[in-house]
Amino acid sequence: MRRFIDLADFSREQILDLLELAQALQHHPEPRALAGKVLGLAFFNPSLRTLASFQAGMARLGGSSFVITPGQGTWLLETQPNAIMKGAAAEHIREGIPVLASYCDALGVRAFADGKSLESDLNESLFRMIDGLCEKPLINMESAMNHPCQALADWRTLDEMKIPTRAKFVLSWAYHPKALPLAVPAATVHMAAMRGMEVVVLRPEGYALPEQVMEKARLAAREAGGSVTETSDRAAALNGASVVYAKEWGSTAYYGDVEADSRLRADLSDWCVRERWFERARPDAKLMHCLPVRRNVAVADGILDGPRAVVKQEAFNRLPVQMAVLHRMLA
Amino acid sequence: MRRFIDLADFSREQILDLLELAQALQHHPEPRALAGKVLGLAFFNPSLRTLASFQAGMARLGGSSFVITPGQGTWLLETQPNAIMKGAAAEHIREGIPVLASYCDALGVRAFADGKSLESDLNESLFRMIDGLCEKPLINMESAMNHPCQALADWRTLDEMKIPTRAKFVLSWAYHPKALPLAVPAATVHMAAMRGMEVVVLRPEGYALPEQVMEKARLAAREAGGSVTETSDRAAALNGASVVYAKEWGSTAYYGDVEADSRLRADLSDWCVRERWFERARPDAKLMHCLPVRRNVAVADGILDGPRAVVKQEAFNRLPVQMAVLHRMLA
Amino acid sequence: MRRFIDLADFSREQILDLLELAQALQHHPEPRALAGKVLGLAFFNPSLRTLASFQAGMARLGGSSFVITPGQGTWLLETQPNAIMKGAAAEHIREGIPVLASYCDALGVRAFADGKSLESDLNESLFRMIDGLCEKPLINMESAMNHPCQALADWRTLDEMKIPTRAKFVLSWAYHPKALPLAVPAATVHMAAMRGMEVVVLRPEGYALPEQVMEKARLAAREAGGSVTETSDRAAALNGASVVYAKEWGSTAYYGDVEADSRLRADLSDWCVRERWFERARPDAKLMHCLPVRRNVAVADGILDGPRAVVKQEAFNRLPVQMAVLHRMLA
Repeated sequence: MRRFIDLADFSREQILDLLELAQALQHHPEPRALAGKVLGLAFFNPSLRTLASFQAGMARLGGSSFVITPGQGTWLLETQPNAIMKGAAAEHIREGIPVLASYCDALGVRAFADGKSLESDLNESLFRMIDGLCEKPLINMESAMNHPCQALADWRTLDEMKIPTRAKFVLSWAYHPKALPLAVPAATVHMAAMRGMEVVVLRPEGYALPEQVMEKARLAAREAGGSVTETSDRAAALNGASVVYAKEWGSTAYYGDVEADSRLRADLSDWCVRERWFERARPDAKLMHCLPVRRNVAVADGILDGPRAVVKQEAFNRLPVQMAVLHRMLA
Repeated sequence: MRRFIDLADFSREQILDLLELAQALQHHPEPRALAGKVLGLAFFNPSLRTLASFQAGMARLGGSSFVITPGQGTWLLETQPNAIMKGAAAEHIREGIPVLASYCDALGVRAFADGKSLESDLNESLFRMIDGLCEKPLINMESAMNHPCQALADWRTLDEMKIPTRAKFVLSWAYHPKALPLAVPAATVHMAAMRGMEVVVLRPEGYALPEQVMEKARLAAREAGGSVTETSDRAAALNGASVVYAKEWGSTAYYGDVEADSRLRADLSDWCVRERWFERARPDAKLMHCLPVRRNVAVADGILDGPRAVVKQEAFNRLPVQMAVLHRMLA
Repeated sequence: MRRFIDLADFSREQILDLLELAQALQHHPEPRALAGKVLGLAFFNPSLRTLASFQAGMARLGGSSFVITPGQGTWLLETQPNAIMKGAAAEHIREGIPVLASYCDALGVRAFADGKSLESDLNESLFRMIDGLCEKPLINMESAMNHPCQALADWRTLDEMKIPTRAKFVLSWAYHPKALPLAVPAATVHMAAMRGMEVVVLRPEGYALPEQVMEKARLAAREAGGSVTETSDRAAALNGASVVYAKEWGSTAYYGDVEADSRLRADLSDWCVRERWFERARPDAKLMHCLPVRRNVAVADGILDGPRAVVKQEAFNRLPVQMAVLHRMLA
């Protein structure tokens, strides 16, 4: 494996194989599998789980890693092609990425959406550029519109919770003071569709997922025998749900317009997931979230501290699934 | 050992055993003792010695480590229970700590005092919460009222300097432009008392150590055959001292009141330890300090660069004593 | 080897030996050569290549490393002798360096020029102080007036490009919005002279390299059979050049005077290296730069993306030459 950028690049069988390998590595550790190998990690944006789990995973396989954080001990890196670099950035990714790649055996990169042009973000302009610059195996640690490591961990969590493949999976918008990127909702709706679930995207008006995202998920659903629909009717969406996956994201109607998005979300603070949301869900319905989650803003304490929440298990699963990816890439 | 949070949790024999192990590991390195083991390090506050010595110590035992620094490459973490998280913090320690713990075999956490409520800080409210959230072995890398790694290194330094168990140990307040936490003075007075020394806390009015701290130290002194007293009389305190341990801390009379503390300390800049402080001390009296120390503010250059200062030895000793702790926890 | 601070401290034979070792380690890796060894890395200034390549290099030789970045997770460190430390810095390098050195087997330090006094920077006042404080092997990861790791990588790059020893090597000033340190130009002119090249320093008026730097380079040239001259005549300098090494640096006529330097460089934005600079150079002339480089400010996209540029190869070579240095120091 030379690239881990999008679950859609893999067949269902390849995904199931990665999940099996994750399981196998948990029960039969291979502490020397990646001895002498070096993983480079470049974070253009903050991280907790990703940083810690990739470093720990590499160590548990006998390898090493280094971390580069532009703006924190490293200069800011310019990402615009043809830029006249008079600003804050001292170096361009056209030099930075190939140089970092040369020092390691695989490179992980986190580079969030620019959040200005929906088209550019949907096209993954930045991550495609990084992809083209990196001659070593490359891992997407969250790009403008994707987060395949999270999606793979979430898939494993669904399996562990014995959520049936055909169960109802509601991806619900949740409140946040600011517009967040579409990476996780886009990755999640696709993952659940690829798993064959009955996927419902629940969100207020103005927050519909981009058609391109929905179409990709519908395609995956068709292949897997599931479905993908979208609604702003909370009661209908949650009725019979086995999983509510809460996630905050920015308005797509006003993409890149901070003020308009602000006005739109001002009235939406009741989109904080609470127990009453689950009244007509299945009794054992689970609450998922990729973390970090703002307590009592996006999801209430009662849910996060109760039996529905499997958010920590999702995070725990980042370690084994990423170890499987590293193993396939480097062993 | 599942917890290393407070020297008071251990018997004198257990402490002496750790110090012996530290000595043994220096003379007979065990470069594979922790092979495959991962130490997580979470720093809510800055560090130099602790960060470097834990990473180096883990490496010297064959293990690995990762570092998480909220606010520097990682989002800020909320610590208040039941917070409505509309502020700067994107994630709560109720998620953050269990997740980090899941990736490693032991977790070290540094979380200084909040500095607002003396009662809450004395109760170690935050560190107790972290303790309750961490299912893996946990190391206190400095909490609101404790710094057991420093205390253990200081004990070893006293032994190496052949300071008699019954010698006079003066913990002296020293000037600093700002109110610093009570963690080191509290840990130091207890450590010296537990070692059986004649402990005198020397500090200006308004800077008395909290009764709870003093009572804990007196209890340790009673068990070990030493004593603990407190005074603002510098000449009396220093008379016959074998050790002066300088440390800056905030006013307990005005705990949490930055302005009142500022006014109080405005006149105290002569609490910079100089050679004349040692006139009536023992001729070979030593100057200790946990570092970082502000030169010519808390302690004069002449002392720090002279034969009395053992501050670097204290820091050097962080490595072997922490290696002993890691070995007991993980080998 | 106990110190790697300046190529001038080594004989030509020793340099060639390091370059051979770098070559050997690339073809015959020694993944256990530094097992159990720990490299400390202290960065007083930002880094990308140096941070990543030293961590990766240590890992590829079986060792470990830790990183300390004052001001980013670690307190600021004071560097002035006899300072009364009332300011932002909480700790002095007189404590910080010996303590860090005690935790590792070798210490790398990056500490850029202060940029205030040319005399003090030329004397390497700060790095000499660090040298005196460090009892372990010490690596200069860029000091006020030197960058030996970059110089060694550049020498290797010249060899790989089969640039003849006697070829014309033009170190050319390049535009940058700010005054940058003299470390790389000083190291580069000396390295090329030591290699025996016909070295020409091309720079606008007010940017002459200090006489001390030129004299050191001329001495190296005399020993190696090359030459070192300086000019502001771009056409003459570039005529017949085999290598143009672009580098930005601050005015030496107004050293430490930010405003005067700003005025002087305001008219110099045409010192952005473009293809037309190479009209009278050798057809296969190469463009070198130590990176980071501001595209279309110091060097045009067309050059950096074309066949002349070997800037990435220079960066790639940091890894093998530094591995050779670490091997000589610690194996």
